Amino acid sequence: MTSQKATQDLPLKWDTPPRWAVQVLTQPLALLNDHAHLEKKAATNALVLLNRWPEPNPPENWVKAMTTIARDEVEHLAIVTRLLARRGGRLTRTHRNPYAHGLRDLVRIGHGLQELMDRLMISALLEARSCERFMLLADVAEDRELAKLYRSLYASEAGHYRIFIELARSLPDATAVTRRWKELLTAEVDVIRNQRPGPGMHTGVV
Amino acid sequence: MTSQKATQDLPLKWDTPPRWAVQVLTQPLALLNDHAHLEKKAATNALVLLNRWPEPNPPENWVKAMTTIARDEVEHLAIVTRLLARRGGRLTRTHRNPYAHGLRDLVRIGHGLQELMDRLMISALLEARSCERFMLLADVAEDRELAKLYRSLYASEAGHYRIFIELARSLPDATAVTRRWKELLTAEVDVIRNQRPGPGMHTGVV
Repeated sequence: MTSQKATQDLPLKWDTPPRWAVQVLTQPLALLNDHAHLEKKAATNALVLLNRWPEPNPPENWVKAMTTIARDEVEHLAIVTRLLARRGGRLTRTHRNPYAHGLRDLVRIGHGLQELMDRLMISALLEARSCERFMLLADVAEDRELAKLYRSLYASEAGHYRIFIELARSLPDATAVTRRWKELLTAEVDVIRNQRPGPGMHTGVV
Repeated sequence: MTSQKATQDLPLKWDTPPRWAVQVLTQPLALLNDHAHLEKKAATNALVLLNRWPEPNPPENWVKAMTTIARDEVEHLAIVTRLLARRGGRLTRTHRNPYAHGLRDLVRIGHGLQELMDRLMISALLEARSCERFMLLADVAEDRELAKLYRSLYASEAGHYRIFIELARSLPDATAVTRRWKELLTAEVDVIRNQRPGPGMHTGVV
């Protein structure tokens, strides 16, 4: 699949220019470190969400979906940290992700189902944007091992995007879900376009 | 391996009487729910520890060890929650584990390497005690599927116990490590023996 075709399946309202991939791949170890931290945070997010569906009854597939995503993300974390170590890099102690932070600021915290809707949509957006960027990286990377890694992650993250957005759509009040998803898709463009350049999965473009 | 032989390989200073397993298996769904929550907490613990080794350099196998444990625990979580759902149970919203809480109270928080030593040893103790109890459950369970589950988890948790204690032993000041391990092994006996009975992995005995 070409990146153009692949990213057409994603809902994003702004396309990252391919030069972003060229820029971040000049610092592959720093990129792998950022990536490992993101996988760790994605795994933790799924484990936290596991108990966040309001009573009385979560949808039948809720626990299965969250444990599957957590399992995938921890698997990716293991792969990325091993690759990082083998290439002489190492996982930094701390990590910042202003993009994820910017998205999380949009969550209507303390608003029950609305908060959950937002959390699922933010998770879907994070997966979709990562997905788009893995495909760009796979297309641009001259290093075959990295190209293969990024291509292999594309399908998995696309699956996670779909799981999160389908769960959001299974919430009561379908009209509100559609409206909020449009709002957040638009808001995400501002957040991603305001990022500074640097070796990370969700950085800006020079 | 019989439970007697298997538990001889563990360092625990007090043996759970086999009637504990008979008692908790009268409520298999509640036991599976408690167990699922413990796997989730064990996975989260490994992900949190991943960035807790002090600078400048973690041991070579640190990241590999923590990601391996996180991966195993999330895998167990997925297995246990699926079994729970298939049998008509469901994961409760909240979960208490006074045993783990009692052990965590022993950690010398804010004391750098001493805190890390304690965290690793507490993690080792939790794995060792779970290990002992999985073997008792495997021996006692008349339900073949449950017996097989518990037996399959024994080896994995024994491996985790060994990883945690070896990492603790790789810390500087071997004398302090040996002394602290003896202290915590003794302290664990009080904590486990003071637990109330009930359908959980770390409960007391009637």
